[in-house]
Amino acid sequence: MSEKIVIIGGVAAGPKAACRVKRLMQDAQVTIIDQDTLISYGGCGIPYYVSGDVSDESELRATSFHMVRNEDFFRNAKGIEVLCATRAVAIDRQNRQVRVQAVDGGQERDIPYDKLMLATGSQPFVLPIPGVDLDGVFTISNLHRAIEIKRRIARGMVSKAVVIGGGAIGLEMAEALTDLWEVETTVVEFMDQLLPRIVDFPMAAMLARHMRDKGVTIHLGEGAAEILGEDGKVTGVRTGKRILECDLVIMAAGVRPRSELARAAGLSVSPQGAIVVNERMQTSDPAIYAAGDCVELRHLISGKKIYAPLGSLANKEGRVVGDNMAGIPSTFKGALGSFIMKAFDVCIGATGLSLDVALAEGYDADVALTAPSDRAHFFPTEAIVCYQMVFDRRTRKVLGLQGFGPMGDGISARIDAAAAYLAMGATIDDFANLEMAYAPPFSAAIDSINAAAYVADNLCDGRLRKTSIQSFLDWMDDFSRQPDWVALDIRHPAEATPFVAKYGANCWHALPYNEVRSRYQELSADKTMIILCDAGTRSFEIQSFLDSVGLTNTLVLSGGFNVIRRIGVDWYPEGS
Amino acid sequence: MSEKIVIIGGVAAGPKAACRVKRLMQDAQVTIIDQDTLISYGGCGIPYYVSGDVSDESELRATSFHMVRNEDFFRNAKGIEVLCATRAVAIDRQNRQVRVQAVDGGQERDIPYDKLMLATGSQPFVLPIPGVDLDGVFTISNLHRAIEIKRRIARGMVSKAVVIGGGAIGLEMAEALTDLWEVETTVVEFMDQLLPRIVDFPMAAMLARHMRDKGVTIHLGEGAAEILGEDGKVTGVRTGKRILECDLVIMAAGVRPRSELARAAGLSVSPQGAIVVNERMQTSDPAIYAAGDCVELRHLISGKKIYAPLGSLANKEGRVVGDNMAGIPSTFKGALGSFIMKAFDVCIGATGLSLDVALAEGYDADVALTAPSDRAHFFPTEAIVCYQMVFDRRTRKVLGLQGFGPMGDGISARIDAAAAYLAMGATIDDFANLEMAYAPPFSAAIDSINAAAYVADNLCDGRLRKTSIQSFLDWMDDFSRQPDWVALDIRHPAEATPFVAKYGANCWHALPYNEVRSRYQELSADKTMIILCDAGTRSFEIQSFLDSVGLTNTLVLSGGFNVIRRIGVDWYPEGS
Repeated sequence: MSEKIVIIGGVAAGPKAACRVKRLMQDAQVTIIDQDTLISYGGCGIPYYVSGDVSDESELRATSFHMVRNEDFFRNAKGIEVLCATRAVAIDRQNRQVRVQAVDGGQERDIPYDKLMLATGSQPFVLPIPGVDLDGVFTISNLHRAIEIKRRIARGMVSKAVVIGGGAIGLEMAEALTDLWEVETTVVEFMDQLLPRIVDFPMAAMLARHMRDKGVTIHLGEGAAEILGEDGKVTGVRTGKRILECDLVIMAAGVRPRSELARAAGLSVSPQGAIVVNERMQTSDPAIYAAGDCVELRHLISGKKIYAPLGSLANKEGRVVGDNMAGIPSTFKGALGSFIMKAFDVCIGATGLSLDVALAEGYDADVALTAPSDRAHFFPTEAIVCYQMVFDRRTRKVLGLQGFGPMGDGISARIDAAAAYLAMGATIDDFANLEMAYAPPFSAAIDSINAAAYVADNLCDGRLRKTSIQSFLDWMDDFSRQPDWVALDIRHPAEATPFVAKYGANCWHALPYNEVRSRYQELSADKTMIILCDAGTRSFEIQSFLDSVGLTNTLVLSGGFNVIRRIGVDWYPEGS
Repeated sequence: MSEKIVIIGGVAAGPKAACRVKRLMQDAQVTIIDQDTLISYGGCGIPYYVSGDVSDESELRATSFHMVRNEDFFRNAKGIEVLCATRAVAIDRQNRQVRVQAVDGGQERDIPYDKLMLATGSQPFVLPIPGVDLDGVFTISNLHRAIEIKRRIARGMVSKAVVIGGGAIGLEMAEALTDLWEVETTVVEFMDQLLPRIVDFPMAAMLARHMRDKGVTIHLGEGAAEILGEDGKVTGVRTGKRILECDLVIMAAGVRPRSELARAAGLSVSPQGAIVVNERMQTSDPAIYAAGDCVELRHLISGKKIYAPLGSLANKEGRVVGDNMAGIPSTFKGALGSFIMKAFDVCIGATGLSLDVALAEGYDADVALTAPSDRAHFFPTEAIVCYQMVFDRRTRKVLGLQGFGPMGDGISARIDAAAAYLAMGATIDDFANLEMAYAPPFSAAIDSINAAAYVADNLCDGRLRKTSIQSFLDWMDDFSRQPDWVALDIRHPAEATPFVAKYGANCWHALPYNEVRSRYQELSADKTMIILCDAGTRSFEIQSFLDSVGLTNTLVLSGGFNVIRRIGVDWYPEGS
C-alpha cells in the first residue's frame, strides 16, 4: 500500500518537501493543503513585484522554465495533489488524520496520513495600536495583499506612505515605493538604528544615510502609537514625536510563527510559539515533521534556539523533511541567520552574531571594523567596502561578519564565505588565511575578509588599541566628553589641513603618515591621540611605531574616514 | 641589540613579511634586497596595465592612498631599508650573512642577518624551442617587460600576436591585446583544452567559445615548435600544424620557482625546484624562512605537495613569516589553488581539485554539472551560471568546485564559499545546507551551490544516472558511437520539435516534461533514453518517475542545453 504523505502549507518548505519525497517515493500519495488559492510563490520577491522589477505576480509563482506552479502543475508535472482554499482545522494524531474544511465553508472532512508535515509559515506581527484595521494598512503577508498594494499605487491612489519597521522587508518596501513610484516614504523604527540585532551601529548608520540620500525619510527611536483615519481610510501615523500624513501604511514589524495547529495537537512549541523540531525536522511526534517559518532552529554559533524565518532556510529544511519521510536520515543542523539586502545603490549583508547580540549572549566579544578596497585598488571598478568582523577574544573564534558596499555580488562573496567558515567553527587565524580566489578584477591580493581577520588578530593580541566610530562621533559632537583627546590626522596635508584650520591645533594635530618616523618628536604624550586615516590601516602602523618610541597614549579610529564619510556628518570643514 | 632581518625579494611576500615584522618589532633592522629597480608591484595587474585598464605602471606600485612604493616610501613610511638593483649572490649560513653585489657590477659585500627570508619568486618557463631570443618575444616576467610590450602596441608596432600557453596569464594577455588594442591574437595551447588541470572540459569549452566569439583565435592540442624571425625580429610561430604570422609573441607557458640561492646554500628543495618549508614557513634551516612563488605548499584537499604560485597566497605566507620572525607562532596550513579570471564578458573560477586531477590522484571522483539561475529567476538581472562540483563517492567529501558565468562577483561568491568549506573538509551534505545569504537580487532561495550539492547527493546515492556533455557531443557527432541511444527531449514542444524534424523520431523523441506522467506509455525501453532539458533538473525528475514505472534504461544529460549552447555546436536545427 502506498504511503500517505500530507503537507499543510504550500508556499516554500511544503512544496519543496512534497516534491522531494515524491521523487524519492514515486508510489507515495502526496497531498498539500493550503488555505490560499495562490501557492508556491517566492514571497521574498514581493518588494520587487511592488517596485515593478517583476512585472506580473505570476512570475513569482513560475518555475525557471516558465510554468506557473498551480494545482495543475503539481498534479501533472509532479504527481502531487494540492487542495487549495482548504483550511486544516485540527490534527488527530491518534488516528493519523487531518481535519480540513473548505475556506468558503462546507463540510469538514478527514484526510488520513502516514506522515504529516507542518509548513504553516508565519504571520506578520500587527502592533497593538489603534487603527490597524483601517483601509490602507497592509502587512506583507501574502501575494493578494501585494497585488492590492501595487494596484493602488499604479492607480495613483498613494502619494505618501509610512513603513512601520526598519527591518529588511520594511526597507525593501521603502525602496520599492520610493524608487520606481516616487511615493514619499517614511520609515519609522522603534529601535535607535535600522536592522536592529542584524547589524551593528556603523553599518546601520551607513545604510540609513544612503536611504535618506535617496529620498526615504527615516525616523529612528520612534514607535508608531496610532494609525489615524477618516471614513475608515488611513490618513496618517502618529508617533511619539509627530504625525506623519499618508495614504498607505506598511506594517513590517516582524513575523510570528503560525503554530496554533501544532499547539492544539499537543506538539512541543517554544515559549515564543515556534514548533520544536530535532535535526531531522521531526516534531515531538515522530510521524509529524515541521519546517519553514513555523519552526525553531539552533543557532550554529551560539548553540541557542532561535527563530529565523528565511525563505532560503525553509527550502533547505523542506528537502531534509522530504529525505527523512523517505527514510534518508538527512539532518539540518541549524542556522546562522545569513542576511543580505539591496537598498538602492548599495547592499548590506551579515552572517552570524552582531556585536550587540554577541555581547548580550555573554561572549567576550569585540569587533574589527575595516574599510578597504573591494578589489585591486588599481582596477577601474574598485570601490570602498566596509566590513565588521565580530569575534570572541577568549577563543579567537569569529562570531559574525557584516558588510556594506556598492550593489553587486561582492558583499555576498565575503558574507557567504564567512558563513561557510562560521558553520565549521573557524577562528580569526582561519579567516586570516581564507583562500579567496584572486585576480585584480575580483579582489585584492589580501582580500577584505583576510584584512578584517588581520585587524581582529591585532586587536585580540592587544597590539591594536582602538576607539569606535560611535565614540568618535560623540566626541566630535561635544569635545568636552573626552577632554583629554586630540585628533592625530595622518592623512595627506591637503585632507588634514582644513580640519586643523577649523578645529585648532589643540584639538586636531596633522602629521602625514610618511613623516611620522622623522617628526614624532613634535607629538606630546599629554593627551590621548586618536589616530585618523581613511581606513584605519595606516593608523595602526603609526600606533605601532609610536608605541616603540614611548608615545603609547594613542587609539586608532577603526574604519576611519571611509566609514565617517558614509555615515555622513555635519562637521566637515567647508570645501573639504 | 636590535635584530637583523634580511629579506631577499621585494615583490609580494618579501615586502609583506618586512612590513609585518617591522610593525611587530619596531627596533628590528629590516632590509629588503632586490635585483630589480622596481619593487612591490602587483604583478597580477600586468595584463590590465597592458590593456589600458590601468593607465600607468606606477599605479601597480602605489598604495591605496596613492603613494608609490619605492625605496623612499619603505624608508620613510615603513622604516625598512631597500637595496634595489642588488643581487644576492650567496648565503653563508654558518656566519649568517648574505653576499650581495650591485647588478651593475662592483664590489661584493656581506650583509649579516639574524633571520633571513627567501622571497625569490618565480621565473617564466621558456620553451626549449628555436627563436625564443628574437626581438618581440616576451614573457610576463616583470614590469619592465610589460612596459615594453605596451610601448610597442601603443606605437602601432604590433598588429598580430601569438600567445603561447592557454593558462590564466596567457588568456588575460590575449584579452588585453584583443579587447582594447584590436591586435589579432592567437592562443596556442599544447593540451586539448584551455586552463588544463585547473578546470574540466565543459568549463574550458565554454570559455574557449566565448573568447573565440570575441575574436581570439584559439588552437588547442597544438604546441609551438619554433619561433620564426627575420633580422633578429619575430615574424611568426610555427606549430605542428601551421605557421602563425605575428610581430609579438607572449610566452606564457607557466613559471618555475627561483631556488638557486636556496639550493646552493644547502636548503631542502623539492624535485620540482621549490623550496621546502614547514607550516611556519621555515626552510630546513630554522633561521631562514621562505614564502611566495619560490616555495612548495601542501594541498589542503589531497594533502600532497603542490606548487601554487599565486600572489594572494604569497601575501598571506609573507605575513606568517613576519609573525614567526617576531615570535608569533602563526601557521600557513596550505592551499586549495583558488583561481578566478575575467575573460571579456564572462568569468571562470575554480577551487580545490578538478575532476581530471582528482581521478589522477586516485579519488573515487565524480562530478555534478549544473546550469541554474544565478539569482531569483524572476529578478531582472538573472543569468544562467554553470557549476561543476567534484566529489568523492566513497567519503562524500567535496573535492572542488568550478564556476562559469557572466562577469561580476557572483562566481566569486560561490567559489570563495566553497574554498572556506573545502578547507574545513566539508561533505556534500554540508554543501547542501550551506547558508548562502538570500534575497532575490543576489541568489536563489536554493542557491546554485546548494543545488550542485543536491545533484552530487543524488549521484552519490545512485538515484541519478547521467551521461556527460562530452559523451553526448561525441554521440551527436556520430550516432554510431552509441547505436542504442535515443534522445528524450522533455523541453517545450517549440524547443524540441525542430530537433525531431531534423534527426527523426528514431533518434530524437519529444515528450514535454509536464506530460510524461500521462503519456509515458509512448516510450520504449528498447533503447537508452538520454533525457534532455535545459539544466538537467527536470531530466532528473523524469528519470525518477520513469524508474518507478519500469523504464529504467535512461541517462540524464548533466548541465543540459544551457551548457551545450554555451559550448556552441554546429548541429542545431536551422531557426532553433
